[in-house]
Amino acid sequence: MQWPKHGANPQYLYEVLKLDMPAKTIDFSANINPLGPPQAVKRQWSSLLSSLYEYPDPFATRLTERISKTTLLPKENVLIANGGAEIISMIGQLFARKRVMIVQPAFSEYETACRANACEIDYFFLNKNWHLDIEGLIATFKEIDVVFLTNPNNPTGKYFSKASIKRLIEAAECLGVYLIVDEAFYDFVDEYEPISPLLLQYDQLVIIRSMTKMFAIPGIRLGYVLANEQFITDLRAIQPHWSVNSVAQEIGLLCIEDNNFQKETRELMKVERKRIFSFLTHNDYLHSDSSTNFYLLKDPFSKESERLFLFLLEKGLIPRHTYNFPGLEGNWLRLAIKSPDENSRLMEALKRWRESSL
Amino acid sequence: MQWPKHGANPQYLYEVLKLDMPAKTIDFSANINPLGPPQAVKRQWSSLLSSLYEYPDPFATRLTERISKTTLLPKENVLIANGGAEIISMIGQLFARKRVMIVQPAFSEYETACRANACEIDYFFLNKNWHLDIEGLIATFKEIDVVFLTNPNNPTGKYFSKASIKRLIEAAECLGVYLIVDEAFYDFVDEYEPISPLLLQYDQLVIIRSMTKMFAIPGIRLGYVLANEQFITDLRAIQPHWSVNSVAQEIGLLCIEDNNFQKETRELMKVERKRIFSFLTHNDYLHSDSSTNFYLLKDPFSKESERLFLFLLEKGLIPRHTYNFPGLEGNWLRLAIKSPDENSRLMEALKRWRESSL
Repeated sequence: MQWPKHGANPQYLYEVLKLDMPAKTIDFSANINPLGPPQAVKRQWSSLLSSLYEYPDPFATRLTERISKTTLLPKENVLIANGGAEIISMIGQLFARKRVMIVQPAFSEYETACRANACEIDYFFLNKNWHLDIEGLIATFKEIDVVFLTNPNNPTGKYFSKASIKRLIEAAECLGVYLIVDEAFYDFVDEYEPISPLLLQYDQLVIIRSMTKMFAIPGIRLGYVLANEQFITDLRAIQPHWSVNSVAQEIGLLCIEDNNFQKETRELMKVERKRIFSFLTHNDYLHSDSSTNFYLLKDPFSKESERLFLFLLEKGLIPRHTYNFPGLEGNWLRLAIKSPDENSRLMEALKRWRESSL
Repeated sequence: MQWPKHGANPQYLYEVLKLDMPAKTIDFSANINPLGPPQAVKRQWSSLLSSLYEYPDPFATRLTERISKTTLLPKENVLIANGGAEIISMIGQLFARKRVMIVQPAFSEYETACRANACEIDYFFLNKNWHLDIEGLIATFKEIDVVFLTNPNNPTGKYFSKASIKRLIEAAECLGVYLIVDEAFYDFVDEYEPISPLLLQYDQLVIIRSMTKMFAIPGIRLGYVLANEQFITDLRAIQPHWSVNSVAQEIGLLCIEDNNFQKETRELMKVERKRIFSFLTHNDYLHSDSSTNFYLLKDPFSKESERLFLFLLEKGLIPRHTYNFPGLEGNWLRLAIKSPDENSRLMEALKRWRESSL
């Protein structure tokens, strides 16, 4: 069976499993803010129609300036892109035929992009509690050209402190290794400390950010890279012209204006995370120690996670399988933290599963 | 002076020239349908807001099937993309380090994409009347791996018949040369004969199409490739996941439903082309023998086209310079065919220029 590579687009999951898709489903496989896009996006939508008629600004000047302002970095260190996936794809091209280390388990696109560019790929695994052995990772730097790290980690939700990243980039800088930190979900993390100021000191650091998760706009594609000026220039040289559509550029500006929205989201995530984790512990489920808007789940009494997976799917509650996360091999399920109601629906189902398996 | 690489985004042109941009301008540098998007797009716009909330279908299944139906090709021969520029960029990657021939003058992205991938690049020039010497081009096939041809040609608007393309692909197929035909403006051509059926016979043919010009939606990015199944598979392997945003996919479907729109547009273009060309001849301007929605223009009495260019710019009428079209070197201006009123404004200005220069 060919499992879908990613969460989201659940129609393909039901198709592969030859299951009928229930009329009502809740997609816990896509880690999208349950609050939906900021109000400003909904309010301004009708006026965005006219942005279809003209070519996008190929330099996304206004959004670049805005990101430059929020990150306190010169605009030469910023490149706007057609979603995080485009950034990863371009980075794969830049590092064609190089030796790549991926901290696993990880988002599968790093490997896909690097394989498409004939890289040599190696894995460095998080340890049993998804702790990152910093010095162990550094010990591999002599043999590699670039390392991919997601922070917070996807799929575990584990957050690595700024001090950890600083230690890694110090070592990477010495040995000429590029450290790619994908911060796709950084803005859901309460205790997050910005690592962008490290870019002023370290040339080998590259930060990838997505705007589609926090602002619930995955349909329109929007992300950006923060890196040294030459790296940005090299990316720009291979980025298709007009790659970032006008609607995304306008929406990006509207999202950034809304300061409260991110704070409100983090509050909600914190409350819901606590509620869900307490429920899981109380009902003898294992979960990853996540700091963000998704977590790993496992029933220690059930040998195969696939039975629980199918149980939830049949109820229209869609988890993310973990068959293509090296180090997990399907033994866990990944679940997004969604709205309180939706999370309660999930917990009810998990309660029933527990009762039926006793 | 660093001339902008492309038409459209005229703010950068005025910036480079250190000219104040008039409050009211008409952009003749972007070859976009003056009718604007089909009514269905405007009518449905408000309902498209919800397509932001979910990840795009990474396979663009519904639009792929629709294009498959209109082109009478299996869906394995179709790939939807984030605008024509993404397609060209990916083709550059597939042909990295190969020997590329570009029929010039041509859209500059072929060269940009091929240079970014270390290709060897050579030019084959259209002759004096922008006639394509088919046998001359075929004579170069022994020395090359791939040839880029725009049909109708951009910037001249010159259309090459299906018989010409058939002769080229026959020869290309024998010698293992890939023939890339960029049909970005094919749907504005009255006498157009579809070359997509040739794909069933010839593996070396690749057709690029844009949906942004005819349907006036350049802001959202949408195009597609038609090619043999293996070529499509190879492109898909390097295309970023979720590259085509959901709004573009929905709009693409709406545009294709409207059968009358394209016909109406071609009628308008035909009438306006005739009116403009008759005016130009009557007023002793030279123009290219265009079959599409733009043409080249030259004042034979003025040695430098730059003076006319600046004259029009100051009036807020924005032509496309031709400094980066090899074979033209700025000696001509390219102008889009726009609405009757806008075309009349241009003709009035050209009349004044003629009078002032007598």
